[in-house]
Amino acid sequence: MVAGGNAGGPAGPTLAVVAREAGVSVPTASKVVNGREDVAPETRRRVTEALERLGYVRRPRFDASKAPGLVDLVVHSLDSSRSGAVLRGVEEAAYEAGLEVVVSAGASRGRGDRAERGWLDKLVGRGSAGVLFDLAELTPAQHSWLGQHRVPYVMIDPAHEPPPGVVSVGAANWQGGVTATEHLLSLGHERIAVVAGHRLTMAAAARVAGYRSALASAGVRLRPEYVRHGGFEQAPVRVRVRELLDLPEPPSAVFVCSDRLALGVYEALWERELRVPNDISVVGFDDLPEARWVTPGLTTVRQPLSEMAATALRLLVRLMNGDRPEGTRTELSTRLVERASTARPRPRPGADAAESCLVIDPLGPAGPPR
Amino acid sequence: MVAGGNAGGPAGPTLAVVAREAGVSVPTASKVVNGREDVAPETRRRVTEALERLGYVRRPRFDASKAPGLVDLVVHSLDSSRSGAVLRGVEEAAYEAGLEVVVSAGASRGRGDRAERGWLDKLVGRGSAGVLFDLAELTPAQHSWLGQHRVPYVMIDPAHEPPPGVVSVGAANWQGGVTATEHLLSLGHERIAVVAGHRLTMAAAARVAGYRSALASAGVRLRPEYVRHGGFEQAPVRVRVRELLDLPEPPSAVFVCSDRLALGVYEALWERELRVPNDISVVGFDDLPEARWVTPGLTTVRQPLSEMAATALRLLVRLMNGDRPEGTRTELSTRLVERASTARPRPRPGADAAESCLVIDPLGPAGPPR
Repeated sequence: MVAGGNAGGPAGPTLAVVAREAGVSVPTASKVVNGREDVAPETRRRVTEALERLGYVRRPRFDASKAPGLVDLVVHSLDSSRSGAVLRGVEEAAYEAGLEVVVSAGASRGRGDRAERGWLDKLVGRGSAGVLFDLAELTPAQHSWLGQHRVPYVMIDPAHEPPPGVVSVGAANWQGGVTATEHLLSLGHERIAVVAGHRLTMAAAARVAGYRSALASAGVRLRPEYVRHGGFEQAPVRVRVRELLDLPEPPSAVFVCSDRLALGVYEALWERELRVPNDISVVGFDDLPEARWVTPGLTTVRQPLSEMAATALRLLVRLMNGDRPEGTRTELSTRLVERASTARPRPRPGADAAESCLVIDPLGPAGPPR
Repeated sequence: MVAGGNAGGPAGPTLAVVAREAGVSVPTASKVVNGREDVAPETRRRVTEALERLGYVRRPRFDASKAPGLVDLVVHSLDSSRSGAVLRGVEEAAYEAGLEVVVSAGASRGRGDRAERGWLDKLVGRGSAGVLFDLAELTPAQHSWLGQHRVPYVMIDPAHEPPPGVVSVGAANWQGGVTATEHLLSLGHERIAVVAGHRLTMAAAARVAGYRSALASAGVRLRPEYVRHGGFEQAPVRVRVRELLDLPEPPSAVFVCSDRLALGVYEALWERELRVPNDISVVGFDDLPEARWVTPGLTTVRQPLSEMAATALRLLVRLMNGDRPEGTRTELSTRLVERASTARPRPRPGADAAESCLVIDPLGPAGPPR
């Protein structure tokens, strides 16, 4: 136990702090914590009060024979190819470290403290050696609970800014947003919209900020009506795209903040008989397998999910060994993967921009023939 | 311990059998196994010889506090969307059963007994409560080793016919092959080729057998040159497709025994400027996400991978509880999912069938525009 330190979460007090607070020795405090009888009633009362006042929670004694090299990976959902990339990175790095991985999709099993508390209880009860959370939305209470139980943990792509001291790994989201937008600018687009996930998630906010910065650097006016936040599902994204297309000046290009959402954008464009990239260019974010499989292949910003996951595992191992990483946030760089969904914008026929997007190409059906 | 039974693998002898063989009581045999001193040297010798002769291996005592509800899922590889579907099914069923899942991709970490023995040792050393193998190629020695260590296990889609008594779950592969072929026959195709994985794997053999049966039932002559076995990679599949297209009478439809291989077929057809389904129809097998995402959407035989995996977990729980399932092989039914990759065959312009496949449609590019 690192005196006064913590193992990956907000600090809970050590027994030494409790003993000092109660004015007793550490062995005496330890006796009280362990339920031993040979402590004077008044001493026991003082220690118990200090334990409660300081929020001390005894960490289950870690016994190597109990959990021989098992770490936990809690993913938001197993329904996406994203989780496959994350699991692959974690599993390979764990294998190299001589560890094994317990996978659960607990976080997606209903919202609210009760559902999430279920798997937290399980992890703590089992004495998990360490936990990786992917895309998790932990509440402040859950963070402090993990800290109090001294469970080392690392967050991959946390939904929200974690409390100070919590170690996390992500992609260089802001830079990725810049890259995507600069690619569209370099093709000659100026009417560039952005479709992002929930406004309040860290990743979406950073990607949209990168988009804004790239526009500003290029001296292109930011149009607030071009910035659209949906959820992480495809249905609301289709609505956002329809709103964009119904603007007096619809965009000639869309930066979509995830590949999965880009599939929803493709569908919405197909419904309007708009062709990618002839009528409108699309850039995604992630470089998941679906970006390769769709037609036209999706130009996207690759975030190295497997590498991020492997990095998170290695950081977790350091926490488990009592080390502190140098920084609490590690970012891995992104890069543009060019496929076939972006092209130069169509020439604009004067001010009648809205109609220019509805020209049907006589040579073939508009969009994928499904 | 079930007397004389086994826990999911080939039987190792119980201690009762060893004691009978040595002519001693079970408690005496137990003393020898547990290294107790209070046994006469001659008795110890007789028991030791019986233990060796019968190949008795003591199962690590299962201690609930050591491995609290952990089961293992060993997948062939985490590189495919297949493994995601399997993991999802296992994880959900495990959650319902109050178990957690340790995932490893051990089987893909190099061939040979040494590599595979590594993770088997780990499972046994940890005292795994039970193991699910997906697409595994276990050797007879590995089967008997698992049996001797009394590790309950269930195989999902085993590559080869497992030894008697081993519990496995798969899809109704033969019926799926019939379904795919009958679909093509019903559209009017008679020149139907099949491209399958390794000839010797159970699933590929059953799917090709279903293809043969459907042709025979329809009175369509089986052409041996239309049956092509590749590996499970896309490169050899492209070679097989080129061979088929170079036949004097190339097929008008191809049944491909997995969606992943079907992507390779799409590529090979695209290289030859053949359009799906106008020039050639394609049916896949699996219904993985890529079948939805490719253009044209792939008509395929859906095998319920998540349900198969969940069934395997529930069977494993029965084995862990000492029950024996009624049968050793459980098959889940398949069904056709029609998308856009199949159509009626082109009219054949006389005997010149080879050339009829090379007509370029003047209305658009041949194949996906990548």
